[in-house]
Amino acid sequence: MTTPLDDSTFRERVEHELRAVAAAQRIRLGDIAAPLVELVDAASGFVAGGKLLRPLFCFAGWQVAGGDRDDPRIARAAAAFEWLQGSALVHDDLMDGSDTRRGRPSVHRAFEAQHRDEERAGDAAAFGSQTAILLGDLLLSWADEQIRRVPEAPDWRLTNALRFWDLAKTEVIAGQFLDVLAQTKRELSVEDAMRVVRFKAATYTIERPLHVGAALAGGDDALLDGLTRLAVPLGEAFQLRDDVLGVFGDSVATGKPTGDDLREGKRTVLVARAAERLGPDRILSLLGRDDGVEELAAVIESSGARADVEADISRLEDDADEALETLGEEAVRILTPLARAATRRDR
Amino acid sequence: MTTPLDDSTFRERVEHELRAVAAAQRIRLGDIAAPLVELVDAASGFVAGGKLLRPLFCFAGWQVAGGDRDDPRIARAAAAFEWLQGSALVHDDLMDGSDTRRGRPSVHRAFEAQHRDEERAGDAAAFGSQTAILLGDLLLSWADEQIRRVPEAPDWRLTNALRFWDLAKTEVIAGQFLDVLAQTKRELSVEDAMRVVRFKAATYTIERPLHVGAALAGGDDALLDGLTRLAVPLGEAFQLRDDVLGVFGDSVATGKPTGDDLREGKRTVLVARAAERLGPDRILSLLGRDDGVEELAAVIESSGARADVEADISRLEDDADEALETLGEEAVRILTPLARAATRRDR
Repeated sequence: MTTPLDDSTFRERVEHELRAVAAAQRIRLGDIAAPLVELVDAASGFVAGGKLLRPLFCFAGWQVAGGDRDDPRIARAAAAFEWLQGSALVHDDLMDGSDTRRGRPSVHRAFEAQHRDEERAGDAAAFGSQTAILLGDLLLSWADEQIRRVPEAPDWRLTNALRFWDLAKTEVIAGQFLDVLAQTKRELSVEDAMRVVRFKAATYTIERPLHVGAALAGGDDALLDGLTRLAVPLGEAFQLRDDVLGVFGDSVATGKPTGDDLREGKRTVLVARAAERLGPDRILSLLGRDDGVEELAAVIESSGARADVEADISRLEDDADEALETLGEEAVRILTPLARAATRRDR
Repeated sequence: MTTPLDDSTFRERVEHELRAVAAAQRIRLGDIAAPLVELVDAASGFVAGGKLLRPLFCFAGWQVAGGDRDDPRIARAAAAFEWLQGSALVHDDLMDGSDTRRGRPSVHRAFEAQHRDEERAGDAAAFGSQTAILLGDLLLSWADEQIRRVPEAPDWRLTNALRFWDLAKTEVIAGQFLDVLAQTKRELSVEDAMRVVRFKAATYTIERPLHVGAALAGGDDALLDGLTRLAVPLGEAFQLRDDVLGVFGDSVATGKPTGDDLREGKRTVLVARAAERLGPDRILSLLGRDDGVEELAAVIESSGARADVEADISRLEDDADEALETLGEEAVRILTPLARAATRRDR
């Protein structure tokens, strides 16, 4: 039987919904003024082609709580997570000064380049930043419109689900702030790094999408708690895998230049584990420097920090498997392929 | 009889609601991690003490559509506009590079200074910008939670009202983008400037708050259209008054250094009218320069541009009065003091 990961109907519905909303917004904003169409197209283009990880977990939560997998409403709600993720990424890239995203220029860089090419007045970099701030705000607005597209009904518990939706938004912002804050410290801490992982990835990427889906279907507190016990280790494993791929992965697969996290000075768990092994001084002297990336990657490998994190991932995957078992046979069937996909090495 | 402008119960309820939500968010985010309390306090502190202009128009719309002025629900919904406005201002100050807001440092400057004072690692200005982006996102999330605080009921048409709420968010972002875009042009246009005024002020500040309030009370399309005919000229007059005060007003009353708009290179209607009189070259050579502010203000005065804009304001006020008359006696009673307050010279 089809599981969320290989349900092509669901994927098509989400993609169709994203296109339909973008088309409606294009008309709404184009009616205000023609130049706004460009902003809409940049926003919808940025979100198109994602892996739909968060909508898929939302769909899985819905099914685990007894929701019908052929109900077209769940794709409409789940699509909201793609707009939310788009908003977070646009602002994140700007905050991190990232040049690329999914193999293409980041939003602030794209608009900066356009300003230069068209020889506009004023500062090109400022224009890029301003546009990225507004585009992220626009995507965040669309996310809220999207989650409310289907109104409350006896078999559609929107009000309940919105509690978890609101938490998702709060937690991703909190996680980003803790990340920003960690980078202003003169030390490296595995604990700080794990806390960022917890809120930027475990709750926001896995737990809350599961909760929103399950709550829409009327899932009870016991189920929601069970989903949390699965989501936390799974989400942590997901993010640690992402960190490893960011340093040692294939840039074609990740859509980001290898080593970008190191270049940007990100306080990842991987880096904190290396500091745990070797002390912070050498790590901090290489972190956040263009010319320190290769050496730092080699140090992370030779110190055993990479192996430490691989061991962390294995342990977290085991914890996730154990938590999943307690949810019962049907939940195992629905969630196992998706959980594997989230933490596998080749994504 | 009490009108919205002098209804102290409503003001107290809105302020109480803002404090209560901030306190709840403080607990929610403090539970994630202690340093987040600082972010919450900065966000709620930023919003405290506003003039509540948008909540008051929301309250007026509610009453004009027959809503009971003693119904405590309307203050809870109307408070959402304060979070939304807070979000827009935090991001706006960052985009404009403004140093102050309401006589205090802007959010990005406050966190930049804190970074320096505490001798943290990394770039202080980048930390200020990152924090302001996240704080604006957080306030935008709170705004959406707030508008949904009171659930749908037969005498509380939340779903209808959310249509106008969503438009308010879209339009303020659109207005900001058009503002940013206007500043990249090598010409000055009254038409461009008026379009920015329309979406940043007329719809977002007046029309949509009125619509949200009226829609919550079940106001029909004819009423909503009538409110639009009032709101557009009134909002335009409001923003033009703001532009004049920004150049010629008292910095104590406005909370911003006089001439900030000129220093930041804002393409206001005032500046565009001066270019209409004198040609764009002299105006553009002075605009956006620290040392051009005094001369440019003098040129705006002596060219007759200031008088032009005062004439624009008078004409718009007359249009607004005429539109208000058509809404009937009770609407005139409810809205006249508030409309006057929005465009008066001494605010």
